Amino acid sequence: MKVHNFNSGPSILPNEVLYKASKAVIDLEGCGMSILEISHRSDMFRKILEETRTSVRQLLQLDEDFEVLLLHGGASTQFMQVPYNLLDRHMPAAYADTGVWSSKAIREARLFGPVEVVCSSKDSHYTGIPKKFSIPAKSRYFHITTNNTIYGTQWHKFPETRVPVVADMSSDIFSRKLNFNYFSLIYAGAQKNLGPAGMTLVAVRKSILGKISRKLPSMMDYQVHIENGSLFNTPPVFAIYISMLTLRWLKQQGGIAAIEKINQKKSDLLYQEIDSNPLFRGTVAKEDRSRMNVCFVIRDPALENEFLEFCKGEDIAGIKGHRTTGGFRVSLYNAMPLDSVEFLVESMRFFASRKG
Amino acid sequence: MKVHNFNSGPSILPNEVLYKASKAVIDLEGCGMSILEISHRSDMFRKILEETRTSVRQLLQLDEDFEVLLLHGGASTQFMQVPYNLLDRHMPAAYADTGVWSSKAIREARLFGPVEVVCSSKDSHYTGIPKKFSIPAKSRYFHITTNNTIYGTQWHKFPETRVPVVADMSSDIFSRKLNFNYFSLIYAGAQKNLGPAGMTLVAVRKSILGKISRKLPSMMDYQVHIENGSLFNTPPVFAIYISMLTLRWLKQQGGIAAIEKINQKKSDLLYQEIDSNPLFRGTVAKEDRSRMNVCFVIRDPALENEFLEFCKGEDIAGIKGHRTTGGFRVSLYNAMPLDSVEFLVESMRFFASRKG
Repeated sequence: MKVHNFNSGPSILPNEVLYKASKAVIDLEGCGMSILEISHRSDMFRKILEETRTSVRQLLQLDEDFEVLLLHGGASTQFMQVPYNLLDRHMPAAYADTGVWSSKAIREARLFGPVEVVCSSKDSHYTGIPKKFSIPAKSRYFHITTNNTIYGTQWHKFPETRVPVVADMSSDIFSRKLNFNYFSLIYAGAQKNLGPAGMTLVAVRKSILGKISRKLPSMMDYQVHIENGSLFNTPPVFAIYISMLTLRWLKQQGGIAAIEKINQKKSDLLYQEIDSNPLFRGTVAKEDRSRMNVCFVIRDPALENEFLEFCKGEDIAGIKGHRTTGGFRVSLYNAMPLDSVEFLVESMRFFASRKG
Repeated sequence: MKVHNFNSGPSILPNEVLYKASKAVIDLEGCGMSILEISHRSDMFRKILEETRTSVRQLLQLDEDFEVLLLHGGASTQFMQVPYNLLDRHMPAAYADTGVWSSKAIREARLFGPVEVVCSSKDSHYTGIPKKFSIPAKSRYFHITTNNTIYGTQWHKFPETRVPVVADMSSDIFSRKLNFNYFSLIYAGAQKNLGPAGMTLVAVRKSILGKISRKLPSMMDYQVHIENGSLFNTPPVFAIYISMLTLRWLKQQGGIAAIEKINQKKSDLLYQEIDSNPLFRGTVAKEDRSRMNVCFVIRDPALENEFLEFCKGEDIAGIKGHRTTGGFRVSLYNAMPLDSVEFLVESMRFFASRKG
């Protein structure tokens, strides 16, 4: 029996991935060494790296123009690495401001060139996705955060534009069908739908690189990582191995199309409960609700801690809202089973019946 | 039975660390969640982070002025991060060139300010450590690589200087007693004496920071990481956990003083065999030999592959020299047991007896 782990990231991983990983920490496929002890230049690791990169390409159905990189540093490093590679003083970048993470991305980008914030949902406390805005044709790129973990909002429609679109997909990659070729650069910290903390996935179109003249430090240069096949320096071997196992698991579930159906079922179930249970209230504009992070509050604030304590007693973990928003946040990443969501919904009903 | 793993990094870890880690991948100390699934803001992880940082401080006996950071990215990221924080156009940095890694560090530093290479062993193909050189008093810092993994050389004496000394200790940190307070900044990729690939240890004196006016991206700024207690972004949780376990193990062995004695015994044994066995020859100036990476060749090059194949059959792994140097490299990191070195030495004797 495990805890019902609704953490926002690092977060739940599939049980079978954990069992395989646990064995590999002792002995990787009978090679006599741990996954933590093998050389990153070994054939064993090259196969792991290649399977991971190929799975990303297959699952996202990426064009040939894309390169798939598995890098150090988390999405926070991409906040600087994207403008380091793509932005200079000659033309601005357009950014959508939908919360803490996009604000951080904007702040880092300003160090490398002009940034135009073309839309923001700040005035509504980031409880929705901006609708009416335009992206200047002369923008280097347009940056969005596809899912906003802290507020529970998600882009469901993307603007038509000829400007290359850069997306931070840290918290919803591999969770829903999208035309991923709409984007020119996709990045995602591993620690939600992919693996443990300590790795970032970057899928970048080669055609958008090499347009600025800045000299880049090697570790920041996408070209360097492309030329070295993601082996410019010692990569985060274990995080890549877990990602390989998670993507293998995802394929066994039927890929993104199949997991999207389950993700819809899970989030529908929880939103229905929030909307029908008199104790609770959703905090996000309905059309912008995230299927990965469900944010809500309890109408009577005096009951907030009581509900948290009650859940703790039921082995429900990780539902406390972000420290900047309060309330509750329930994360429903790919590995979260429907059973756990059903259990949470029953617990909400039971709690309401006791308080009703 | 395990393979005798002489890999240069990622490399051997203590067995008991691997067993504990394997369990924690399923369930961390009975909390019902994997070490890969817990929040980096949880109390459980804060304790892991604090124990790791405190152990580093204790084992290295660092002055109060030092801050200990556990960052993403590997030593290759430090090649840029050090000059990003410490170097500008007003005063040069002094670098010692002792091989591939210091050359890479020099190349990255040049992007941020003037660099003076004050000594180099390039002319002797990096088979020794430079002896006679001076460090200009007006240098921002003096950078060395204390142990050169590829060539098997190691600094055993450090120059007297008032210039702050920055050291890449990736491959010999925690392996020998040093006055670590001689240094002003120490960095080390985890994947030799500390943990798996995917984390870098940085110990930096606060007093050397804040002397340049460049605006830094947040992820590059040591101050930002200090202010956030190494939790500015989601850290590499698992790599930090393994590091905590490895440092706990090191303390149980008696700390650095005790492990240094074993490391001396191991390297003495192997160097004695290389010097006395007629088949082999060491490649490094005797006074500069590394106690972590022992480099040697076989006098008859026709036998090189045969010896490698023979070792493979004996379950001896990871002794092939770096692709740029050829020959053999045997890495003797802290976790390498004396037994395995004895076994290797016996195998060298047996091979020589067959060929003699």
